[in-house]
Formats: sequence, structure tokens, C-alpha cells
Amino acid sequence: MSNLSLDSAARIVDAALEHARTLKLKPLTVAVLDAGGHLVAFKRQDGSGILRPDIAQGKAWGALGMGIGGRALAERAQKAPAFFVALASASGGRVIPVAGGVLIKSGGDGVVGAVGISGDHPENDEACAIYGIEQAGLTAQPE
Amino acid sequence: MSNLSLDSAARIVDAALEHARTLKLKPLTVAVLDAGGHLVAFKRQDGSGILRPDIAQGKAWGALGMGIGGRALAERAQKAPAFFVALASASGGRVIPVAGGVLIKSGGDGVVGAVGISGDHPENDEACAIYGIEQAGLTAQPE
Amino acid sequence: MSNLSLDSAARIVDAALEHARTLKLKPLTVAVLDAGGHLVAFKRQDGSGILRPDIAQGKAWGALGMGIGGRALAERAQKAPAFFVALASASGGRVIPVAGGVLIKSGGDGVVGAVGISGDHPENDEACAIYGIEQAGLTAQPE
Amino acid sequence: MSNLSLDSAARIVDAALEHARTLKLKPLTVAVLDAGGHLVAFKRQDGSGILRPDIAQGKAWGALGMGIGGRALAERAQKAPAFFVALASASGGRVIPVAGGVLIKSGGDGVVGAVGISGDHPENDEACAIYGIEQAGLTAQPE
Repeated sequence: MSNLSLDSAARIVDAALEHARTLKLKPLTVAVLDAGGHLVAFKRQDGSGILRPDIAQGKAWGALGMGIGGRALAERAQKAPAFFVALASASGGRVIPVAGGVLIKSGGDGVVGAVGISGDHPENDEACAIYGIEQAGLTAQPE
Repeated sequence: MSNLSLDSAARIVDAALEHARTLKLKPLTVAVLDAGGHLVAFKRQDGSGILRPDIAQGKAWGALGMGIGGRALAERAQKAPAFFVALASASGGRVIPVAGGVLIKSGGDGVVGAVGISGDHPENDEACAIYGIEQAGLTAQPE
Repeated sequence: MSNLSLDSAARIVDAALEHARTLKLKPLTVAVLDAGGHLVAFKRQDGSGILRPDIAQGKAWGALGMGIGGRALAERAQKAPAFFVALASASGGRVIPVAGGVLIKSGGDGVVGAVGISGDHPENDEACAIYGIEQAGLTAQPE
Repeated sequence: MSNLSLDSAARIVDAALEHARTLKLKPLTVAVLDAGGHLVAFKRQDGSGILRPDIAQGKAWGALGMGIGGRALAERAQKAPAFFVALASASGGRVIPVAGGVLIKSGGDGVVGAVGISGDHPENDEACAIYGIEQAGLTAQPE
């Protein structure tokens, strides 16, 4: 059904949170979606706010939705805000154009999913996503 | 912010899936929500369908919403279908009245969250939820 | 803007909860809406589930929406379930056809609002709503 | 189920409205949510508009959702409007980034809820929220 196994997704989540502990970041929420945009693995650390699950999933979903990472989505949203208002509506609120949404690529299969992380500065969220993907032996595309 | 720690929630998810492997169940999706109905930990096994994340969360959310487990919700829904149609609408589709949604109780704190599992027969889903909660040293209320 | 004052609405809420304590009911949620269907006063007792705010408001809103009390709505929903599914959709989930939604009438002004109570058996919820309305010197219409 | 009791929430509402009377503010709407974002106590003064219930709850919900007060949310929204449009969509319209949403903290428990007030200038709304929280013996975090 998906080219992203639960084993890989769970490793991404745990490695991302390890990296956050090393960097002493604020409490994070980490979501891993498959290529179809459906949740595979998820953890929200103690003290991470109640909107974080939607933001983390929205960063990942937006990246999958447009086929580019959250960092590039954020740049486009700066230039074309009305377009992103329309995307927010069209997607039922599932597109969050901010760094911290990172596409997951696997050698033969292309894009197999995306990670979304929320809770600290967007660039720190993104660093944890990239670390997690690489620890799982996969390729990260943040933009 | 919550009386259910990520550590406990993650143990519930992993223990529930261990139990599913022992019982040789179909691929499951397991969601653990805190008392406010917000996702804390989640895993979807390879081959578990794309509506399962909503079903698993809806079983847990419905239990929290009404303060009773999914097994009791299922019985009430049999007797009062129009009321449960109304609840589905009122909750934005977040109430799924079926066994497999189990309240999590902790000694001093009362209800601290809920587990929702979907993928096999409801009674098997429920058995895994109860097993997971008990392995985490907490108390399960399935009805 | 409204013929139901906050003073009256707050008295209804507090009197309803006094009655619930006398009757030793389960934890209740009490909502009072004005004639326009907008919230005026609200209390949710400790331990009352997270869907109760929507249910209490939905009982009151449904009564206002149709101009009859929740007890009568429940009877109609039994006879015409498809109609009430349509009402649930049409209202965005704001119609809950169950006893416990009671219209508030005032001598010269007709219907000035509605009370919705959720948490115990519907007939007990309704008894508290009627008691609260009468303690505030207003007239209750439960059907 | 919640670390914020109805007793505390009701005291916050009443103290906030006392403060508003002292300051001779416009008619206010006051909402108190628990840590999960669910309504606990609410009052809307006579003459307070029909969107005020959504605004007051949205100020409180947004503060809980992001884990910072409304004053800080307003500053961030100035700098990153597209992100807050996305949050509005992702949350189903429950994030209102304006002063007047204040987190409630309690010694041992951290964030136990939030107050949202709407009706006068945002800084006056916020002053009433802070006053109410402190009168209930709790700690206010407006940013």
C-alpha cells in the first residue's frame, strides 16, 4: 500500500527526537506521512501545544501536496500569499507553508512520504526532520 | 499540560502491537490521545488502510467525548441511532461508536486519555488496547 | 440585542446545577443561548466529557432551530430519521434531538432563548433545565 | 480529567467582569478553556455582539494551541501573515491571534487552561483576563 514502512517511519520519529534532545530544543511534535498523505507514525512530546499535531501534519502534507519541501513553500507563500490562502481553503487547512516539512525520498521509488515537525524555530524543526530521515537510511528533500 | 506522558503513550502503542502480533491479527492502526482529545502517539502498520487513522482516533475521541468506552458507545448507538448521527455531525466526524476505543485511567487523576485501535474485529482491537494500557501500568475502561 | 439578560442566564445555569447536586446527578454541562442561538452563559462541571459542550449547545440550538423542545425533537427523530440526518448536515452539526433542550419563554416576548444540559439521563438533564428556568422567573417549554 | 476546576474557572470569569465594570469597559464576552481547549465557564454581557463567543474562545484556543499568549501571537502574525492564515484553516477557525488570550498556569501543573476576552480594546480585554486569573490564585501568561 505504501513504500514507506512503519519501521522506517518509527525510526525517523525517534531519531528526530534524539536530535532535538541533543540540541536542547523546545518540546516537539513529529509526524510522518506516507506518499498518499496518510499518517504512519507520530509522537508529541510533553508540553507541546494542542495545535502542534495539525501544524506538524500540515507541514508534511503541504510538502507532499505540492511536491516541494516546506522551506520552498515558505518562500513561495511570501511571494504569492493569495495563492496560499486559496491552497489552505482547497486543502481543508492541510497545507502549512513553513520550514520543517521535509520530503522523504528512497533510491528507486522517488518520494515515499514526508516528515513534519513543529515546536521550535522552523529551521530547528527542519534540522531534526533531516536528521531523522538520514538515520533511517533515506534521503531528505527540505526544499 | 497533560497527565498522560509521551513515555506512557508510546509504551501503550508498542505493547498493543506486540499483542496483535501474538494473536496474529490483521494490520492495525493505534492512536493514543490525551484527556483533551489531542494525539500523543500513533503507529499504523504496513497494509492498514488509509481511513484507519480517522477510525482509530474517532474511537478514542468518542470515548473521551462521552466519558464511556467504545463498547458502551456501540450499545447506545444501536438503541439511539439518530442521536449518534447527531453526535457525528456535532463533533465533525470525530465520534466512532465501536469497541476498540478504551479510556485510560490513572490512580489519582481519573481519565488521562484514551486509546483507539482499528484494523481487526472490534473485540480484538479492544483486547490489544486493554493489553497496551495495562502494560503501561495504567487502568483500562472499555465500557 | 437580546431579551435574555446575562443575569437571567447565569441564574438559570447556577440553579440547574444546584438541582443536579440535590438529585446527585453525574457531572453536567449547562449552556444557555439567546433567541438568536448565541451563547450567553455556560458551565461544565469537573469530569464532564469533552463532547458535552457541543451536545448541551446542540440541544438548545436544535430547540431554537425548530421552535420546539428537545423532548418533542427526540420523538420526531424516531419517526423521521432521514429528516434529522438532513438537519444535522444543514445546521453544521448544531441540532441534537434529545430531551434536555428546553425553550425559555418570557411573558410578553415569547421565546427569549433556550437551555441545553448534557451529562446524565436526558430526562434528568431536562428536569434541571426546567428547574433553572423557573428559578429565574421564566417559563420552560420542554416540548 | 482537567487540572482547571469549574470553581476556579467561574471565579476567573466573575472577577474579569468585575474589573471591566471598574474600568467602565464596553460589554465583554469571557471564555475559560481547560488545557485541552474545551470550554469550562463562559459569560457574555448584554450588548456583546454575536461573534464575540467565537472570538473569545479563539483567543484562548490559539494561546493553548501554540503555547504562547495572544499578545505574542499578535506580534508573530504581523511578521508571518501567511502562516497565520494557514493556522486559521488548520484549526477550523479556532486561532484568533490578538491580545486578550491569556494562558493560565498553576504551580505544579504548568499550563492548565486559558482565558479569552473580547469586546473592548485588546489591551483592556487582556487586563481583565490577567486580573481574573490572579483573583483566582493562579498565574497569568499573556505572551
